[in-house]
Amino acid sequence: MSAARLIALDWGSTRLRAFLLGDGGQVLETRQSNDGAATLSGAEAYARALADLVGDWRADRPQLKLLACGMVGSQYGWREAPYVRCPADAVALASQTLLLDERLSIIPGLVDDAAQPDVMRGEETQIVGALALHPELADESCLVLPGTHSKWARVSGGKVTGFATHMTGELFALLRQHSVLNRLMPSDGSSPASPEAFLKGVDAAQQDGGLAHQLFAVRTLGLFKQLSAEQLPDYLSGLLIGHEIASELRGVTPGRIALVGDPALCARYAQALAHLGQPQPLLLDNTAPAGLWRLALTMNLI
Amino acid sequence: MSAARLIALDWGSTRLRAFLLGDGGQVLETRQSNDGAATLSGAEAYARALADLVGDWRADRPQLKLLACGMVGSQYGWREAPYVRCPADAVALASQTLLLDERLSIIPGLVDDAAQPDVMRGEETQIVGALALHPELADESCLVLPGTHSKWARVSGGKVTGFATHMTGELFALLRQHSVLNRLMPSDGSSPASPEAFLKGVDAAQQDGGLAHQLFAVRTLGLFKQLSAEQLPDYLSGLLIGHEIASELRGVTPGRIALVGDPALCARYAQALAHLGQPQPLLLDNTAPAGLWRLALTMNLI
Repeated sequence: MSAARLIALDWGSTRLRAFLLGDGGQVLETRQSNDGAATLSGAEAYARALADLVGDWRADRPQLKLLACGMVGSQYGWREAPYVRCPADAVALASQTLLLDERLSIIPGLVDDAAQPDVMRGEETQIVGALALHPELADESCLVLPGTHSKWARVSGGKVTGFATHMTGELFALLRQHSVLNRLMPSDGSSPASPEAFLKGVDAAQQDGGLAHQLFAVRTLGLFKQLSAEQLPDYLSGLLIGHEIASELRGVTPGRIALVGDPALCARYAQALAHLGQPQPLLLDNTAPAGLWRLALTMNLI
Repeated sequence: MSAARLIALDWGSTRLRAFLLGDGGQVLETRQSNDGAATLSGAEAYARALADLVGDWRADRPQLKLLACGMVGSQYGWREAPYVRCPADAVALASQTLLLDERLSIIPGLVDDAAQPDVMRGEETQIVGALALHPELADESCLVLPGTHSKWARVSGGKVTGFATHMTGELFALLRQHSVLNRLMPSDGSSPASPEAFLKGVDAAQQDGGLAHQLFAVRTLGLFKQLSAEQLPDYLSGLLIGHEIASELRGVTPGRIALVGDPALCARYAQALAHLGQPQPLLLDNTAPAGLWRLALTMNLI
């Protein structure tokens, strides 16, 4: 086993993930806790959450640096890291890293302010990781990071030239749990997947009429038994993901598409893209550790 | 004071409104309670809610008929009334009224199943009322009933030829109360109206990018102080109403537009329509009593 070289922290809203990285960015050990930034308030709470998860790593290896990305650097986080403006690459991110103390640094977020401002924190690091693992994406590509707030980032000449956030995952959760649409759906959330209903939703999203209108069909298709209760969540998912994809691909040739993140969710996007005639996308799991390693190298931290 | 001729009931999800109508449909007395259909379960609960609100009207005038519209006739209501298919007019609705007992009848809902099915219950009666009050709308018009589930109905030759539901009001409430967008907004909901922020939202909705993307700007415009916390709810309202209007008017000449319902909400729609260059719409308050009167006449109930 190689010696540890870096403690990499992917510190998002809901979870803190820690990676002990060895030579070449190899992941030696992984831990995670539910001490996400949304659950913490004040510097002491962050310091305690970090000590709880990796206090022993730090104590055993006092020479090791820590590098963090994500909502830990938001204005409600441990301390606010800046936003770097697009177009930006790993060098631009590394140059504006926030030094929290002599051992721990926080990667800045990205802002695209070409039109109305759009922001990311954490995904910029995953993008750096994806480009490090797949240099062929650097020339011209579209990196999609599905989730609560999905990100579509355009990469050209090794830089993120712009991006857009879609509140797809959050809308799904709100509508699934709190809206009138929930009444006809199974309550336990354990229904078997229905690819047929999902693709029916993807198709509906390509029609005119607007999302707020099309959502009502989740109710009426249930009411008139054209879809079963178990199929309705998949139809809703297809509608929302279908809208996201349609609005991003409208009139645009995206270059190579890469999907980065949770494999089950990325598989849904891949299925929708294939259904809409797009070429097979590249599928990548969490690339935050690779991104943090690349940024640490760029910063001469290791 | 003229003699009472009909007890008209506008019985929606959240409220029961009762109107004692005299000659010519004149409203003699109005009462309302919070016994909406969403709060009631089973025939006895409905009968009790009705007795609580207008038991004395019924007892004092045993010859008077009662005519109801709205969610009271849904499959979770007192008893299920049918859906009449578009195109439909007052005669079609009257002919399929559900006789609950010898005194009380329930108006059917409407279904538009030209594409995916869309439904209404209660609004069909408001439309009949609007056409009774303004016969000039019967030829060619677009009746908009803003609300939790806004309806856009096309009227031609005196019939409702088709309609679409938009979940605009429900999305506003969900996003205002439960989403990440709520965090930057004032919590008490008493902020002064900002027509400027509202119209900025209406404008943003006319751009490309998709609703789920544009919603995220509510967060970033707050984050970067381009809008104040107090302005964000109005911006969100403008975005959602702007999307609804844009998707309904895309490539369509709507004929005369009439807005029917809550005056404050209709005023928002009128402001957005004027901003988008539409002619001044007709503004109507609740037309359910006029609709129930017209339907009672059509049924020879009075």
